[in-house]
Amino acid sequence: MAGNTFGHLFRISTFGESHGEAIGVIVDGCPAQLPIDLDFIQSELDKRRPGQSKITTQRKESDTVQILSGIFEGKSTGTPIALLIPNEDHRSKDYEHNKTVYRPSHADYTYDAKYGIRDHRGGGRSSARETAARVAAGAIAKLLLKHYGINIFAHVSAVGTINAPNLQPLTAEELLAQREENIVRCADPATAREMIEFIDQIRKDGDTVGGKISCVIQNCPPGLGEPVFDKLHAELGKAMLSINAVHGFEYGSGFSGSEMRGSEHNDIFLTNGDQGPKTLTNFSGGIQGGISNGMDISFTVAFKPVATIMHNQQTVNAAGEAAEIKGKGRHDPCVVPRAVVIVEAMAALVLADQLLRHRASQL
Amino acid sequence: MAGNTFGHLFRISTFGESHGEAIGVIVDGCPAQLPIDLDFIQSELDKRRPGQSKITTQRKESDTVQILSGIFEGKSTGTPIALLIPNEDHRSKDYEHNKTVYRPSHADYTYDAKYGIRDHRGGGRSSARETAARVAAGAIAKLLLKHYGINIFAHVSAVGTINAPNLQPLTAEELLAQREENIVRCADPATAREMIEFIDQIRKDGDTVGGKISCVIQNCPPGLGEPVFDKLHAELGKAMLSINAVHGFEYGSGFSGSEMRGSEHNDIFLTNGDQGPKTLTNFSGGIQGGISNGMDISFTVAFKPVATIMHNQQTVNAAGEAAEIKGKGRHDPCVVPRAVVIVEAMAALVLADQLLRHRASQL
Amino acid sequence: MAGNTFGHLFRISTFGESHGEAIGVIVDGCPAQLPIDLDFIQSELDKRRPGQSKITTQRKESDTVQILSGIFEGKSTGTPIALLIPNEDHRSKDYEHNKTVYRPSHADYTYDAKYGIRDHRGGGRSSARETAARVAAGAIAKLLLKHYGINIFAHVSAVGTINAPNLQPLTAEELLAQREENIVRCADPATAREMIEFIDQIRKDGDTVGGKISCVIQNCPPGLGEPVFDKLHAELGKAMLSINAVHGFEYGSGFSGSEMRGSEHNDIFLTNGDQGPKTLTNFSGGIQGGISNGMDISFTVAFKPVATIMHNQQTVNAAGEAAEIKGKGRHDPCVVPRAVVIVEAMAALVLADQLLRHRASQL
Amino acid sequence: MAGNTFGHLFRISTFGESHGEAIGVIVDGCPAQLPIDLDFIQSELDKRRPGQSKITTQRKESDTVQILSGIFEGKSTGTPIALLIPNEDHRSKDYEHNKTVYRPSHADYTYDAKYGIRDHRGGGRSSARETAARVAAGAIAKLLLKHYGINIFAHVSAVGTINAPNLQPLTAEELLAQREENIVRCADPATAREMIEFIDQIRKDGDTVGGKISCVIQNCPPGLGEPVFDKLHAELGKAMLSINAVHGFEYGSGFSGSEMRGSEHNDIFLTNGDQGPKTLTNFSGGIQGGISNGMDISFTVAFKPVATIMHNQQTVNAAGEAAEIKGKGRHDPCVVPRAVVIVEAMAALVLADQLLRHRASQL
Repeated sequence: MAGNTFGHLFRISTFGESHGEAIGVIVDGCPAQLPIDLDFIQSELDKRRPGQSKITTQRKESDTVQILSGIFEGKSTGTPIALLIPNEDHRSKDYEHNKTVYRPSHADYTYDAKYGIRDHRGGGRSSARETAARVAAGAIAKLLLKHYGINIFAHVSAVGTINAPNLQPLTAEELLAQREENIVRCADPATAREMIEFIDQIRKDGDTVGGKISCVIQNCPPGLGEPVFDKLHAELGKAMLSINAVHGFEYGSGFSGSEMRGSEHNDIFLTNGDQGPKTLTNFSGGIQGGISNGMDISFTVAFKPVATIMHNQQTVNAAGEAAEIKGKGRHDPCVVPRAVVIVEAMAALVLADQLLRHRASQL
Repeated sequence: MAGNTFGHLFRISTFGESHGEAIGVIVDGCPAQLPIDLDFIQSELDKRRPGQSKITTQRKESDTVQILSGIFEGKSTGTPIALLIPNEDHRSKDYEHNKTVYRPSHADYTYDAKYGIRDHRGGGRSSARETAARVAAGAIAKLLLKHYGINIFAHVSAVGTINAPNLQPLTAEELLAQREENIVRCADPATAREMIEFIDQIRKDGDTVGGKISCVIQNCPPGLGEPVFDKLHAELGKAMLSINAVHGFEYGSGFSGSEMRGSEHNDIFLTNGDQGPKTLTNFSGGIQGGISNGMDISFTVAFKPVATIMHNQQTVNAAGEAAEIKGKGRHDPCVVPRAVVIVEAMAALVLADQLLRHRASQL
Repeated sequence: MAGNTFGHLFRISTFGESHGEAIGVIVDGCPAQLPIDLDFIQSELDKRRPGQSKITTQRKESDTVQILSGIFEGKSTGTPIALLIPNEDHRSKDYEHNKTVYRPSHADYTYDAKYGIRDHRGGGRSSARETAARVAAGAIAKLLLKHYGINIFAHVSAVGTINAPNLQPLTAEELLAQREENIVRCADPATAREMIEFIDQIRKDGDTVGGKISCVIQNCPPGLGEPVFDKLHAELGKAMLSINAVHGFEYGSGFSGSEMRGSEHNDIFLTNGDQGPKTLTNFSGGIQGGISNGMDISFTVAFKPVATIMHNQQTVNAAGEAAEIKGKGRHDPCVVPRAVVIVEAMAALVLADQLLRHRASQL
Repeated sequence: MAGNTFGHLFRISTFGESHGEAIGVIVDGCPAQLPIDLDFIQSELDKRRPGQSKITTQRKESDTVQILSGIFEGKSTGTPIALLIPNEDHRSKDYEHNKTVYRPSHADYTYDAKYGIRDHRGGGRSSARETAARVAAGAIAKLLLKHYGINIFAHVSAVGTINAPNLQPLTAEELLAQREENIVRCADPATAREMIEFIDQIRKDGDTVGGKISCVIQNCPPGLGEPVFDKLHAELGKAMLSINAVHGFEYGSGFSGSEMRGSEHNDIFLTNGDQGPKTLTNFSGGIQGGISNGMDISFTVAFKPVATIMHNQQTVNAAGEAAEIKGKGRHDPCVVPRAVVIVEAMAALVLADQLLRHRASQL
């Protein structure tokens, strides 16, 4: 209820502040007997880890995950899987300046307004560090989905106004291979080079820039998603909007669909042998009436620019007086390269939950 | 869990199919002693009612709401408020054609895939008729918010490629007055005329068109919204994406924010007397770290075009064979004029829920 | 959250006051394609109905159930099933006396203390009339359980100090047949006669008396129940304690088990062919570690005497002044004969929910 | 949903197996700014700790609690409080014997039946070791309740057939002082001596015995508890029944109330100055209609004898074949002395949750 839990049947609860002892997560509801590959979980965390390239924050955290429970002889037991990631590089002194001064477009003021108390070190609970716990939990959800042949692939589709072209005919595996070739995690090599150059320039300016991540889910069976309030895309949307810095979500035709006519937007059904029907186009983004239809599920997530910049900014302090603040610490000039795996993790958590929920719908 | 319930402390559960006996909703968790104005609830429903103008469906439903419980001597008692809306004009024969043939971009196929059984009459549970129950419940949420001085205002900000200008300096009350002057529910009179003409032409073509609704919440106190997963904008996003035909959601700077630099996007804090600080700009859309900051909350919702068109379309039937279908029945050429009050209702439900949840956060 | 919803995957939400327009319930999460026998639902309600014999209240309610949604061509569709029971015989004037005077051992004072407002007519929401909605919903749960061969049987095992003997070797069907032979719903004919005579005398005295109901669930597969907090018996216990007038719950050896030694209490496992093991004794009541073990599940529920008696009683009024009150209206001298079907309904709701929840536990 | 979470607004999620790395708990929803006394949390754990006297298990665990998050400068911040208790004395070899052989009246068979996989070491997740996490979380709930002046006191009221007398006129503080004078945790010194002697004899016999714990909650304000399904006593009942080895729960008059007449059972209201009314008797156990009435809340919990005895017992193995098993390891001859603080912890969790839920009930 306090908002630190996500999912219903496949459910995670995260805890931990940026500069406390540790962060972590309980994964509850993972079906028993699922082989759990610890190396895979760690490799997912490594994709989110700070300090991985010149265009990400230089903060050093090994983000080594420990499993405390729920796994026995390499398999899930059906009981809660607790994952712990100790905090290592907590230079709290970098954050003395925002103890009483509110950083613009950060959560300093709103946490104070809500709770009347705030762990100011590194943003406390509002820090994007919390998302490491999601990535660890999402890795387990991905293992479950892989068991059923479902693939999730996200990549950076825009940085500022630099947009990647449509890469649609490629499979998730092919896209993944291309994405991991470059540090910005865009699956189109030419666009990736342009993006990296641009972010590097932004970094030198002491500034930041926003971007977009696009995601496709392949091989999802029809029938996932609950009607009315818990539509599959509504749950995906909430999941994405819960990620730090996200300001927008669209699926299928998205915002451009609002400009179209029904006669061009409708996805004509085609016969498909003895399987369920296919559609000629996929403006529905693989979801109709909130329920997956067996086509690729596609959505895009918009991230605002990181709020911490290396410029002087006007602001106020906790006493309501005018003040000035300058970004310190080690921050990302653009959040999307490290957020790709977070988007995938949250998508995996939604799918895993809906997969289990779907089981209750029939005799 | 089956997805027909929304909210936690202020919680609604809807029921009913388009062409069954009735639709309805239970509102659970409304605080006791709130004066309940039945005329207001009915007037909200009237804004969603079919047959209200030449640019909406000509289907006739009076949508008269009955209150079955939870109100005593004009006030809420703290117990569940059950609201019932009988179905009147259920021309089931209009839907014989989609009993075994799947309408493109509708939920016929996915409901069959999920449940193996489907009330095909009028879309059954996937019909937008279900949203009447949300509007009735949302009206009660609005009464609660009004008690605390919080106003919600939405209007049609785009139809196809026709976009309304920014009307920002106006208050919610002023905008509401202008919106109710025209049948398309756009607060800018000149744009409204253009939209109405366009929709009328679309209707004559037997086609449909998408659009956008923008919403502003004024006078929301700082502190609402839960950190991490249940961020205020994440709950708003889920609420909006759960509305039929919605394909996108953005708040504050939204998708355009992904193209900006931090130095232009950051909302500088300004001193504000003895109240909490104001911000110079509001790219944050009134929400920082998932928690309201006291500024206006703003978001936009994208609707795809209505799937039912009066043209012949290719499709498949339940046996997987090729078939042809032609739209019948009485449908909206553009859904946004009637959806304005649905967007407001869902926003009110989110705010009411977060208002009550917030009470648990402090000693 | 406000406490009017029960269950997770098979979930009900009830509404309605004793003397309002109607009471009702939404059943959400019933799997699709279950045949729904309306006559069975009505026959269950008839067992709870007032006015059925000389030892129950003489209030007249036909308790005729209407189905508003969720059923199509005789089968569940997977969407919410809404059930409505109009109130007929609401003699509100019988309740003028408790508008401002608190009836001893009723909920008049506590509702006022909680909400500051109260529908005093007939106890409003705290009336046992609310349980009719549970019985209707429980009937649907029973239909689901019957589909899987699970039987639930409850009967009156004690009235005051009159206790029924152990009837263990009989099947649920045999017990049911014997129970329905008499108006007190005790499966032992001799004890039943004694109980009826005693209740009749109590009624003539203008007094009331408590009693006990025992329940057995036969043919429940092993594996139902969630470990730790949502143990099968913990959910059953909560379900029973939520019924009006219940003051105690025990399962298996129950309170007498607290007096036993481990060497006599342990249920020795026996080989059982190619099925799961049986146990020699069943002090575990069919549940071990919170999970069903395939043996009969058994529990007993204690009901306090009805609070409304036909004697003058001292009390206080809403102003805190001394007052006197005399029971009026038409009440049960003993609640257990009509509560048998309520106990079964709540047990069915728990089992149906756990049955669906169990599906998520394995790959 | 998988059953490892308890509570709604004040919510805990536990994890960890008896012989894994660690056990722990996330406390989510503790209001901000509550002073957190770590010594108090540890002292509560010390009361549950094994090895504390000759009548408890001789297993050695220091049960030292670590706080990982949610506390800043000695106060709660409103974010999740994660508590970790490393496992120290895990003699897994004591449990080789039950890897494939099912211990009678344990959860070995049912976990296998449910999950098809089981961490057999020390009972895994079904071990009472899990309750240490509850005690740590319950200590935080107690701190919240103390802030509002609410006291909870439990003690051993029966061991086998040895029952403590009624100690009603004493306050919770006085009872607590007397209880902590002896190792069996019975507040009546004479009964305590008898109980200790009896348990010591049972232990020498290699046997075990059941018992009862009674609990009183003093100074609870009227109005706590939700009507219908989440009645205060229903939530307390579920909480108690979720504790290992509990077979029964009763509140107020309990099972003996089922033998009484309404004319003797009704609690007459008395004037009480300018406060809410008092009652002459308290057969209602401080709860009417599921809502606290300001009187002492009282309930009793029945525990079956510990299943592990030092005798040879017949059983079956995982292959369904007859087998023999003998209790090994270090176990409690009687669980109630160490369970007193668990009962208090669970009661505190229920009260804290209802306290926060109550805040949503009024304008």
